[in-house]
Amino acid sequence: MTRPVFHDLRNAPAFKRSIFNAIVAPRPIGWISSMSAAGQCNLAPFSHFNMVSTAPPVLMFSCNTPADRPEKDTIANIRETGEFVYNLVSRDLTEAMNTTSAALPRGTDEFQAAGLAKASCEIVRVPRVAASPASMECRLLRFVEIAPELPGETASIVVFGRIVGLHTAEGFIDANGRFDTARARPMTRLGGNQYAEAGPIFELAAPFTKRD
Amino acid sequence: MTRPVFHDLRNAPAFKRSIFNAIVAPRPIGWISSMSAAGQCNLAPFSHFNMVSTAPPVLMFSCNTPADRPEKDTIANIRETGEFVYNLVSRDLTEAMNTTSAALPRGTDEFQAAGLAKASCEIVRVPRVAASPASMECRLLRFVEIAPELPGETASIVVFGRIVGLHTAEGFIDANGRFDTARARPMTRLGGNQYAEAGPIFELAAPFTKRD
Repeated sequence: MTRPVFHDLRNAPAFKRSIFNAIVAPRPIGWISSMSAAGQCNLAPFSHFNMVSTAPPVLMFSCNTPADRPEKDTIANIRETGEFVYNLVSRDLTEAMNTTSAALPRGTDEFQAAGLAKASCEIVRVPRVAASPASMECRLLRFVEIAPELPGETASIVVFGRIVGLHTAEGFIDANGRFDTARARPMTRLGGNQYAEAGPIFELAAPFTKRD
Repeated sequence: MTRPVFHDLRNAPAFKRSIFNAIVAPRPIGWISSMSAAGQCNLAPFSHFNMVSTAPPVLMFSCNTPADRPEKDTIANIRETGEFVYNLVSRDLTEAMNTTSAALPRGTDEFQAAGLAKASCEIVRVPRVAASPASMECRLLRFVEIAPELPGETASIVVFGRIVGLHTAEGFIDANGRFDTARARPMTRLGGNQYAEAGPIFELAAPFTKRD
């Protein structure tokens, strides 16, 4: 049994970074499709991803961008077009999602590499994953850069997108007009190579004084 | 069985905002403690929360800030002190976390309201939740404002924090030096009043070409 531990991270460049993803978990997966101005498609999963506001509908994801490597296609594409699409990773899309996490040669279409059919969007030119229970068409709102501070650290770019269109697939809106999360079986990311679904879902009434 | 549906959200101020939290789910819960310059403590849960970078270690959470209400204590405190703490919500802290989600009168100490013991931090003045399996001491990196665009929409403030200290409780670092997520049983938030743990955790090897 390990004892309680405290790590001072103010000047700890060699600190084992993987622990953070094991603690802030499970994380929803932002499966982001994008397209270059020339029409080359890309699809990649990001777990540093979440909603940040529901009205206006805004989401974010963060992409590590080491200075010694070319910028990832996702970021390069969004710079060019200002558009991207979030796709929900359901349980049965997990293997395909994992395939799209590979660092494939620039110009590879991950939809093709993973055997995924594309569907057209209504507002943006970027395609969505046809088999996903839900997709959100997004326009770039802003980039926020996270700068490295210590040796060995790398920059990240946080992408904020305004959701301009929402697709839900057949059978995922329930009788009350709500999205049926349990039916979608969204996949999540934990530490290391760990994944999980949401365990049994339960309801907890908000305290009576809660405002929103 | 509902048919596929598309919603154009470019000018839809009356759109049912709750659907987004049912799709981007389950979300990790950022249980954020903060303290005013005068020493008044606050504790509140946020599900628009995640890591954004592991090296440097940076996390974010977003707080809705309607123009017609006073700023929430969490944001006011961080403005005053530049400090806050993230605490992991384990399964057995769920009821206490829910209690701290109430909009209690300004100046109420949610630690006391929920019967939670405080523990001191090492670097920041803000206390942490003593019973939490992991806490991260943070210094404010920056605020990013999300502005309303349509009638009925409200502003949000996204808080980015640099993690300067990490606490793990007794028994949560396994024999391989990794944080034992399954043991911590982190609680997550879905749509409406829904919560869940991570379901059975499994491993999925990254594709051989994956870089990180």
